[in-house]
Amino acid sequence: MNVQIITIGDEILIGQTIDTNSAWMGEELNLIGATVDRIYSIQDDIEEIQKTLEIATSEADAVLMTGGLGPTKDDITKKAIASFLGVGLVFDQGTYDRILHLFEKWGREPTPAHREQCFMPATAQLLLNKMGTAPGMWFDYGDKVIVSMPGVPYEMKYLMEHQVIPGLRAKFPGRPIAHRTILTVGEGESRIAKRIESFEENLPKEIKLAYLPSLGTVRLRLTGRGADEEKLNKSIDQKKEELNALLPDLIFGQDKDSLPAYIGLLLKENDLQLGLAESCTGGYLGHMITSIAGSSAYFKGGVIAYSNELKKNLLGVKEDTLKQFGAVSEQTVGEMVRGAIHTLKVDVAVGVTGIAGPGGGTPEKPVGTVWLGVGDKNRVITRKLQIGKNRLKNIQYTGVMALNMLRQFVLNHI
Amino acid sequence: MNVQIITIGDEILIGQTIDTNSAWMGEELNLIGATVDRIYSIQDDIEEIQKTLEIATSEADAVLMTGGLGPTKDDITKKAIASFLGVGLVFDQGTYDRILHLFEKWGREPTPAHREQCFMPATAQLLLNKMGTAPGMWFDYGDKVIVSMPGVPYEMKYLMEHQVIPGLRAKFPGRPIAHRTILTVGEGESRIAKRIESFEENLPKEIKLAYLPSLGTVRLRLTGRGADEEKLNKSIDQKKEELNALLPDLIFGQDKDSLPAYIGLLLKENDLQLGLAESCTGGYLGHMITSIAGSSAYFKGGVIAYSNELKKNLLGVKEDTLKQFGAVSEQTVGEMVRGAIHTLKVDVAVGVTGIAGPGGGTPEKPVGTVWLGVGDKNRVITRKLQIGKNRLKNIQYTGVMALNMLRQFVLNHI
Repeated sequence: MNVQIITIGDEILIGQTIDTNSAWMGEELNLIGATVDRIYSIQDDIEEIQKTLEIATSEADAVLMTGGLGPTKDDITKKAIASFLGVGLVFDQGTYDRILHLFEKWGREPTPAHREQCFMPATAQLLLNKMGTAPGMWFDYGDKVIVSMPGVPYEMKYLMEHQVIPGLRAKFPGRPIAHRTILTVGEGESRIAKRIESFEENLPKEIKLAYLPSLGTVRLRLTGRGADEEKLNKSIDQKKEELNALLPDLIFGQDKDSLPAYIGLLLKENDLQLGLAESCTGGYLGHMITSIAGSSAYFKGGVIAYSNELKKNLLGVKEDTLKQFGAVSEQTVGEMVRGAIHTLKVDVAVGVTGIAGPGGGTPEKPVGTVWLGVGDKNRVITRKLQIGKNRLKNIQYTGVMALNMLRQFVLNHI
Repeated sequence: MNVQIITIGDEILIGQTIDTNSAWMGEELNLIGATVDRIYSIQDDIEEIQKTLEIATSEADAVLMTGGLGPTKDDITKKAIASFLGVGLVFDQGTYDRILHLFEKWGREPTPAHREQCFMPATAQLLLNKMGTAPGMWFDYGDKVIVSMPGVPYEMKYLMEHQVIPGLRAKFPGRPIAHRTILTVGEGESRIAKRIESFEENLPKEIKLAYLPSLGTVRLRLTGRGADEEKLNKSIDQKKEELNALLPDLIFGQDKDSLPAYIGLLLKENDLQLGLAESCTGGYLGHMITSIAGSSAYFKGGVIAYSNELKKNLLGVKEDTLKQFGAVSEQTVGEMVRGAIHTLKVDVAVGVTGIAGPGGGTPEKPVGTVWLGVGDKNRVITRKLQIGKNRLKNIQYTGVMALNMLRQFVLNHI
């Protein structure tokens, strides 16, 4: 199945909004074996929408549109689709009843725009949108499909997951497709490729492997297509097990797992309370940990020891250590970890000190030099990173590497 | 001038990469008075590139392409452009010399792909790319223009700023256009609109005002067009001064200033050392402050007191206070601020405690309840926020509001 996506709205064209919807849709469509062969961002304009619909429906099996629906919009999209299809707009009492019911619950009054919103192209099959007031619309167009969804990301995602993806799978069954994604951290794409070279060479031709790298982590996605779904699932599961066996030290999860969420599970399982001693990451590591709901179960807190004074006063780093080895050193990070365990009364602590840049580098310790430490009351492990020149990337990459070291420590890999 | 943007590369269509380039280009083009009327994301495919070039050049004055250049690509883009223009590819010795020189400096060997990369469509005017090895290409096409740039964001931005934008302005002068953007924090769009209602009503018709809101801040952009550049600049500067006078309490900067950078200047000017006591923001506030290079000049550090134990042990919050009022209370945040001033030995401190969600809410203190505090050794000011249900947005919005309160405190507005 070939798909084209049309994103409607001036806010993308003037650069006020970044189009994250299309990438999300592209990924989901890819997973069901569809090919997205073009994405358009166009103006909120009837003629423009019609013209784009003409091109897109002439080339693709399914055309997915987002944006241009809802009470604050002019509903230009609906007028454009109705006119493209040569049908009128009709009032849908069911949609209006739902809106009235919602507003009653909220204790607010709907505006006349909400009533206007209930006029739909006559041939629309309405898709219930539990996340908002504007339903999605599905149109059978010969042997093709046109779908229109609101542009609000969580409304679009709800409709895609509950209605559009299942609908497209039913209408364009195609050959069975199966995916398995495993998540790795700690090695780059090329090193992983070396380690699994013979695995890749021996993949059956119906199974492909994709590397999806991002700042310290690499997702490995196996995609298989075949005539027999049961056989396919068995074969791809076996390949996933082989990968698991080849990279046991790097894998932390699958599908949409996240590293901070995995760290949370690991700490809870091992009944460990975590503390942080951050210098160059300046709070970012704490932010990663606390991005997970419920993190207070295993995260006691941390010290952002940005100044040497706080490294000494709160973490007990020795004046001598700072003088002799400097704030960015193995010795300092070791004392930061021990200090955090003591000051924060935690079971396990992570320490970070480095030069995030762009200033502050020296020939011996250039920008991007970072020392990481992780430990408990018995032992402390340290590691040096040499990253790049971009301040924000240095901070973010350090955060991922620190979580990875914590993972390895708790698992007794280091 | 009408522009269409073509983004080339499968990684956007499969959802691996979000297209941030087009939004950035859209905003920059908008600033010079150009209208972006369509954006395409298309496959790395010669026929597809040619077909899209045909549509785009038939409709727009300028077509800007990104992606599909560089040593790791197949250079399909160049072949497609050459074939679209009916010209051949010729080797450019200057580009190759530059690559050899760069590789000599890096102490590395260029690959054969780097030599391949130096074949250019015969009519290309090469645009020096100081950020990478692949130059940009400018083609005059009748009275229109085609430009091709690498897809790496900082390379594209460099070429846009130094070559493409000046080139387009020279080729399509149009009426003079002028912009002034001021940045506000602390009030929403609708309240600002009320405060400047009569200012807006009395704007001369050649000057427009746009509201660009994002999580706690609103950018106000004045755009003027006129025949006489000098007169236009004078008139728009006067309107900017009027806005400054109407919203003195909300404005923290202009153009591309950032709130954390402004806070840095303010603290340096006032010779103040800052400390933080974060609970629900979990390090995010520290991350905002330390996202600014040189922040160690005014930021000593902070305590992430995620647990009540650390609120007591490190910040001296009283057991009684926690029992009687709870961790999310005016009393607790006040003690956190005083504790931070004492423990961190800073001049000014910010405290945050709240329920980021999605769990942890109660009828009296629902998810999104946050107490902020800011103070010095003489006084502490507190403020309550009631935000929404989204954990990450609650954290980010709280960060902005905390920085705003710090701004108001240092300026003696509160």
